[in-house]
Amino acid sequence: MPTKAEIQTFLLREFPQTTVLVDEAGDGWARVRQPVGEEHLRPGGTVSGPTLMAVADVAAYVAVLAAIGIVPLAVTTNLNINFLNKPAAGRAIIGEAALLKLGKRLAVIDVRLYSEGEPAPVAQASVTYSIPPAR
Amino acid sequence: MPTKAEIQTFLLREFPQTTVLVDEAGDGWARVRQPVGEEHLRPGGTVSGPTLMAVADVAAYVAVLAAIGIVPLAVTTNLNINFLNKPAAGRAIIGEAALLKLGKRLAVIDVRLYSEGEPAPVAQASVTYSIPPAR
Amino acid sequence: MPTKAEIQTFLLREFPQTTVLVDEAGDGWARVRQPVGEEHLRPGGTVSGPTLMAVADVAAYVAVLAAIGIVPLAVTTNLNINFLNKPAAGRAIIGEAALLKLGKRLAVIDVRLYSEGEPAPVAQASVTYSIPPAR
Amino acid sequence: MPTKAEIQTFLLREFPQTTVLVDEAGDGWARVRQPVGEEHLRPGGTVSGPTLMAVADVAAYVAVLAAIGIVPLAVTTNLNINFLNKPAAGRAIIGEAALLKLGKRLAVIDVRLYSEGEPAPVAQASVTYSIPPAR
Repeated sequence: MPTKAEIQTFLLREFPQTTVLVDEAGDGWARVRQPVGEEHLRPGGTVSGPTLMAVADVAAYVAVLAAIGIVPLAVTTNLNINFLNKPAAGRAIIGEAALLKLGKRLAVIDVRLYSEGEPAPVAQASVTYSIPPAR
Repeated sequence: MPTKAEIQTFLLREFPQTTVLVDEAGDGWARVRQPVGEEHLRPGGTVSGPTLMAVADVAAYVAVLAAIGIVPLAVTTNLNINFLNKPAAGRAIIGEAALLKLGKRLAVIDVRLYSEGEPAPVAQASVTYSIPPAR
Repeated sequence: MPTKAEIQTFLLREFPQTTVLVDEAGDGWARVRQPVGEEHLRPGGTVSGPTLMAVADVAAYVAVLAAIGIVPLAVTTNLNINFLNKPAAGRAIIGEAALLKLGKRLAVIDVRLYSEGEPAPVAQASVTYSIPPAR
Repeated sequence: MPTKAEIQTFLLREFPQTTVLVDEAGDGWARVRQPVGEEHLRPGGTVSGPTLMAVADVAAYVAVLAAIGIVPLAVTTNLNINFLNKPAAGRAIIGEAALLKLGKRLAVIDVRLYSEGEPAPVAQASVTYSIPPAR
C-alpha cells in the first residue's frame, strides 16, 4: 500500500490546484488538513462551503487510495454533505475519512470535517467512489 | 425582486473568490456560467469535481436570491450531488437551478450542470438552504 | 424492452409486499401509483415518509427496468430524498421517474412524488442503481 | 427527558404501523430493533430497501425525541442512505443513531444499520429533522 508521501505526490498530480495536506493515511482511514487562507474565506470570517466540499472529496479519495493503492481512475459518483456548524476563520479544516464499504466496484466513505482544535464537526459528508474494473 | 446585476454584485461580495457569472435569474429559476480556466481542470482535461460542486452551490443560491431578495444570511444546510458524465475541458460549465420548494425556513433547489452546448448533464444536485427567520 | 405488464409482474415477484402499480413505463421514464390505505397514513391524515421512500425506490427501479430490460440483480446503492410538502391523506401517491444517466455500471434516476391531482411535488428523490456486469 | 417506554408509546401513536422496538435511547443517541418477518423480505432472502429506510428514519426520530423530548411536529426534511452490504434474512435489523447536530431549527443524525450480530453495517444514512419553533 502507498505511503503518505506517495499519496501526497499523486494527489498534487491529480489535483494540481489543491493545497490539502495528507496528515495520515492507513488501512481504511485518512486525515487531511486544509490550511485556510484568504481564498477560502467568506465575509464575516468563515470558511466557504465549496472549500469544505473540496476537502471532503479529497479526504475520501485519500482513504480510498490508502486502501486500494494509487488508482488514477477512481472517480466520485456521489457526494452528500450536511453543513453543521460555522467553521472558524483562523483555523485549518481537518478532514477525517473512514471507509464504510470497499467493494469491487464502489467504495463508500464517511467524512467528518472539523475546525482544527474544535470538538464539534463543521460538516459531515458521505462520498461514493467508483473503482475502475481493471485493478 | 433583485435584478440580475444586483445579484451578481451581491454574489461577488459574499463569495469574493467566485468567477461564476449570473446569466439569468427569474422567479424560482436561475442560470449561471462558470468560465473554465486552468485552475478548474484535472489532468486529462476534465473539470474537477470541486468546481462542479461550487457551481451547483452558487446556482442554487442565485435561484434563492432571485425568489426572496438579497438575503445575506441564507446558508446551505445540505448538498447532494450525482456526477453523471465527464465534463469537457474546453467548455464553460452551465448551472441551471429550479426551486422545488420555497418555505418559510427552508428552500430546496434542483440543479443541473452542463458542459456548454452539450445536451447531457454532467451532474445533478439538490441543495437545501436555510432561510433566516427575520426576513 | 419489457411491456408495462411484464414489469408489473416482475415487480410483484421481486417485492411481494408492494401495492405499487405501474402506470406507464417508456424509454428512460416511468410513472407509478401507490394507492393509499390505512397502512400508509400517520395520525392527522398524511402519508408516512417510509411510504414515500418506498414509492421513490420502486419508481426508479421501474424506469431502470424499462430501459435495460428485466434484470433481477440491479440493486439500489444510494437514495437521497427531500420531503417538500405534506401529502394529502385521501389521494394516491404518484411517482414520476426519469433516467439522468444510464451507464454500464450505474444508473441515476430523478424521481418526483405527487399527491394525485396536486401540482406541487410532495418529495424529490435521486436514486442510484448498480447494474450487474453480466447483462 | 422521556424514558424509553415513553418514546416507544409515542412512536406507536405516530407510526401506528411500525413494529420497530426502542432498545435504548440516551442523550443524543438511540438504538432500535426491527424484527424481520416475511413482510420485510425479498426473494432470495434479504431484507428490502424500504424496510431499511423506514428503520433509519425511525432510529433518527428516536434519537431526536430522546434529546428534545416528545415533540409531535418534528418532520424529516432530508434522508440520504447508502446501501452497503446485503442484510441477512434471518436476523433483526439494528439501527444505531447519533446526533451530529441539534440546532434550534434542524437536527442532523447519523444512522448505521446492522444485521444483528454482524460487525459490518448494511447501510449508512444521514437524516435531517426540522424542529418546530414553538418548543
